[in-house]
Amino acid sequence: MRNVTKESITDVFMGYLGDDVNPRLREVMGSLVKHLHDFAREVNLTHEEWNTGIAFLERAGEISDAERHEFVLLSDVLGLSSLVDMLHSTPEGTSSSVLGPFHISGSPPLAVGGDMRKGFDAPVLLVEGTVKDTNGKPIPGATLDIWQTAPNGLYSSQDPDQDTYSFHGFQTVGADGRYAFTTVRPVEYTVPSDGPVGDILRACGRHPWRPSHLHYIAEADGFKPLVTEVFPEDDPYLDQDTVFGVRDDLVMSYQQMPAGSFPETGFDLSGHVEGDYLKVTFDLVLVAK
Amino acid sequence: MRNVTKESITDVFMGYLGDDVNPRLREVMGSLVKHLHDFAREVNLTHEEWNTGIAFLERAGEISDAERHEFVLLSDVLGLSSLVDMLHSTPEGTSSSVLGPFHISGSPPLAVGGDMRKGFDAPVLLVEGTVKDTNGKPIPGATLDIWQTAPNGLYSSQDPDQDTYSFHGFQTVGADGRYAFTTVRPVEYTVPSDGPVGDILRACGRHPWRPSHLHYIAEADGFKPLVTEVFPEDDPYLDQDTVFGVRDDLVMSYQQMPAGSFPETGFDLSGHVEGDYLKVTFDLVLVAK
Repeated sequence: MRNVTKESITDVFMGYLGDDVNPRLREVMGSLVKHLHDFAREVNLTHEEWNTGIAFLERAGEISDAERHEFVLLSDVLGLSSLVDMLHSTPEGTSSSVLGPFHISGSPPLAVGGDMRKGFDAPVLLVEGTVKDTNGKPIPGATLDIWQTAPNGLYSSQDPDQDTYSFHGFQTVGADGRYAFTTVRPVEYTVPSDGPVGDILRACGRHPWRPSHLHYIAEADGFKPLVTEVFPEDDPYLDQDTVFGVRDDLVMSYQQMPAGSFPETGFDLSGHVEGDYLKVTFDLVLVAK
Repeated sequence: MRNVTKESITDVFMGYLGDDVNPRLREVMGSLVKHLHDFAREVNLTHEEWNTGIAFLERAGEISDAERHEFVLLSDVLGLSSLVDMLHSTPEGTSSSVLGPFHISGSPPLAVGGDMRKGFDAPVLLVEGTVKDTNGKPIPGATLDIWQTAPNGLYSSQDPDQDTYSFHGFQTVGADGRYAFTTVRPVEYTVPSDGPVGDILRACGRHPWRPSHLHYIAEADGFKPLVTEVFPEDDPYLDQDTVFGVRDDLVMSYQQMPAGSFPETGFDLSGHVEGDYLKVTFDLVLVAK
């Protein structure tokens, strides 16, 4: 339009959309632009603030690469990632939670009862449970893509001292739906705060900590994929996760287990459990498609 | 919070902000995140759509460099840049309009009455006017940073065949506030549509065209800087500028001038005007700080 005004520009934008635009795209772009314009009008956004925003996006682009996903991190700390998860969670199944920026594809096979600890100098943790449907029936052949931090609080992609797939594993469960692996206790850690998202956290007086957690992507034929995380109940950051990932049903507890008790788990862990160990039992409930 | 919900997450975000956060930052971030969350809830944003958005931002980051500003272009085609301009325009002065992604710093001095055409094979256009205050009084010493497309529709930063500062000039007006330079008629052109912003335009059924225009940044001591553009009244894209830049008071007209008439302009153009020429008169009105 020849004379766009600050009041009319949102309608002018909608008028620019072609008649045969995909209806969902029209809905999403229309809502996005309406909220973008409302935001600018509501705060009377200045040129200096606009410049700051553009410079932020450019810096986030510069720091991003195949392993550093600053825009995912931005979405995480603004709560958008968790909100999208919650919008599509199914109450009958295990809650989903943020994928985060550290998932990598192609994790190596990890046998049921296998070991992810690989001799790291930290107490052994046995994680086990059952992948089941909403009726409690095991799901044979379900797969779990599992990843977590090393004891130093770093994921392998952040840490030149770890192998690419350190603390990453891909497990396929058997007929009983049970999964199990030995690892170490994941530790709380900070999201990467050396980039522009870190600057936002500091400016907002926010800490960059996440409570410790294990990541899972659970998949099975006929079921919706589940991307989730589980958190120990005694973590100091449980109530202030900087990426908003904690849900009531994702909180678990560690049990201290005496030496020699692993045979009762039903898994042969003789190669990688000696002495006392910690145990977590956490079942994953998938929802049929 | 331990159990964030899709309803509570916006309040949880606000609760994470530190007590001593800059009040303006609290206002801007609060509004931004409220609108971001409302957008996601309103359209029930899916993971696939979220992924598309993240991939878009990453691609925009990848294509950006010192000369390609894809995030500025995104802001332009969504109307945000124009909206910020309009929020801070002062009605008594010349309207501001989008800076656009093609401004470069350090343009060479261009004497009043000087030439930016440099022998390009296109009819001569004389652009002239007065930089004045809201009482109509000339502003001696005001500066104009001027840039435009070459006859091929490209800015110098887009075109390996042009010098860096081709069709860029920096003029300082004298005691009478008058500015003048010879150039060629700028032409309508498309915003860069070979990147992710181009994909948005195509998906939305939008064209990438802008009406032809001259860019100015006018500055003077004691006055608010003015970033603006002026557009000819006969341009075919005047009513559908893809970046929403046209305002009523920024529309001008070309006058066909007979050979030999340039002395009446008061400028010595004998070195670079031969034969007929086009003339535009456009005054720039700055608002005191």
